[in-house]
Amino acid sequence: MAKKIVECVPNFSEGKDQKKIDAIVAEIKSVPGITVLSSLADADHNRLDVSYLGEPEAVKTAAFAACKLASKLIDMEKHHGQHPRMGATDVIPFIPIQGVTMAECVELANDVGQKIGDELGIPVYLYESAAKTPSRTNLADVRRGEYEGIKTEFQTNPNGPRKPDYGPTTMHPSAGFTGVCARMPLVAFNVNLATTDVSIAKAIAKAVREKDGGLKCVKAMGFVIKEKGIVQVSMNLTNYLETPIFKAFEAVKAEAQKHGVQVIESEIIGMVPLQALSDTADFYLRLEKFKSDQVIEARLIE
Amino acid sequence: MAKKIVECVPNFSEGKDQKKIDAIVAEIKSVPGITVLSSLADADHNRLDVSYLGEPEAVKTAAFAACKLASKLIDMEKHHGQHPRMGATDVIPFIPIQGVTMAECVELANDVGQKIGDELGIPVYLYESAAKTPSRTNLADVRRGEYEGIKTEFQTNPNGPRKPDYGPTTMHPSAGFTGVCARMPLVAFNVNLATTDVSIAKAIAKAVREKDGGLKCVKAMGFVIKEKGIVQVSMNLTNYLETPIFKAFEAVKAEAQKHGVQVIESEIIGMVPLQALSDTADFYLRLEKFKSDQVIEARLIE
Repeated sequence: MAKKIVECVPNFSEGKDQKKIDAIVAEIKSVPGITVLSSLADADHNRLDVSYLGEPEAVKTAAFAACKLASKLIDMEKHHGQHPRMGATDVIPFIPIQGVTMAECVELANDVGQKIGDELGIPVYLYESAAKTPSRTNLADVRRGEYEGIKTEFQTNPNGPRKPDYGPTTMHPSAGFTGVCARMPLVAFNVNLATTDVSIAKAIAKAVREKDGGLKCVKAMGFVIKEKGIVQVSMNLTNYLETPIFKAFEAVKAEAQKHGVQVIESEIIGMVPLQALSDTADFYLRLEKFKSDQVIEARLIE
Repeated sequence: MAKKIVECVPNFSEGKDQKKIDAIVAEIKSVPGITVLSSLADADHNRLDVSYLGEPEAVKTAAFAACKLASKLIDMEKHHGQHPRMGATDVIPFIPIQGVTMAECVELANDVGQKIGDELGIPVYLYESAAKTPSRTNLADVRRGEYEGIKTEFQTNPNGPRKPDYGPTTMHPSAGFTGVCARMPLVAFNVNLATTDVSIAKAIAKAVREKDGGLKCVKAMGFVIKEKGIVQVSMNLTNYLETPIFKAFEAVKAEAQKHGVQVIESEIIGMVPLQALSDTADFYLRLEKFKSDQVIEARLIE
């Protein structure tokens, strides 16, 4: 039985003050059983993006502790930055990695959301797979108007469209609003094409992306890669179980063929779940009954 | 920087006495930092096969401790079993898994071999990548004659062809001889073909295996799978860096095509290193600059 592993990627509205940044990351690291994958502070965005792994209970504990600390350190009344934001702890996504279902991550989001609402007095919105209403599925909709806009709407009509899923119907003095969600890990996957004609990359992107009738859970755009003299179909796979990497690759390859263009190479940007890789090997090798726990290294996590 | 992980797969000449089997496995498990992947005792073979992982120092400590205990528990003068064997601890292979070179595993084999020779008084033969002479590369050559035959040759001429790489030139009273090696992990990989004609599987096996001029580090045989009404090319890939899984698969597929036969499916039997899987994804997706440490789960091992 594989250990249950959840990833959490909280974002905080502080990207300049190194002491505060360090304190928040240290708060997460101090929870036993937590592995911090990365912490990235951006001064222009004035935002801190932390990624960490652990078993569900530890991940929950760390998320609440970091949110609590951020509510003391960050004042949304004074916060400015280029990135859209609505709270000191802006978002807390829970992501199933191993031995965990999306339903369990939705439960985590509810547990943490309720605790933040009840104990810290911060209004909480649940979004993506944790959304309790379709209008809150997309984070962009939830965060529309950002801190200042949401505040005005919320104060005008606390039980209206901005009524939180958890927490009070009164403002927290400084911490703003926090979005909590459950979602699949995002796989950033690009395919490079042997042409300088960006219109082909754009046409292929349009053909493969969900928005325009293509593959489920695929976002795609076409770009020029000037330094290489080629073009790129840049994709975000928001659910690698719905549309696996190999399916996106084969779709781009087939579309490229229609244009008489060769696929040069592809790239996975950043992290990828083991399952997404083993599904790829599985597909091309036509593997029978292969399980991720046949991977030697996976056994070290149990 | 990835943590250094070595696999060790010692084999002991005891497959019947559960108390002794448990004691040897417990001895390995008792070393801090060791993860036992499997322990398989076979009564007919009268042999125990243990597989465990850890950092180099821990793996070394566990190998020596288990060998020491086995030398007390197992008497080769009384041992019988179907599997070829030469010692209480028959073989100790060290296998690089992550962040470790073959050269480092050869060093481990030498360290442990020397310690077994010096401290336990057991003659040690180094084989495979750890062999100090070509005649000891193959375990089958080293173990030829088994315990009884090697003992006679050794006692007749202790400084002759049976002179150990480490340890005394006199017999240990009961523990026999121990082979210590460094080798790559073995990937057991089968490809099933849509025909009942086993001569095709045999011909393909012959075409792809190293022995008959095929792919490096590939052993292959052709079999009938009666219950499925098909045939199988069953392969052992003894070095997945020399001949990766995808290369073996594509070679079998190409040979099958010559015979007008379809590949139905393939299977990986048992464990496989993450690198072997990610190399497969890499090949088919033409991945640029992909590293195994982009796999989320791999970060939990560091």
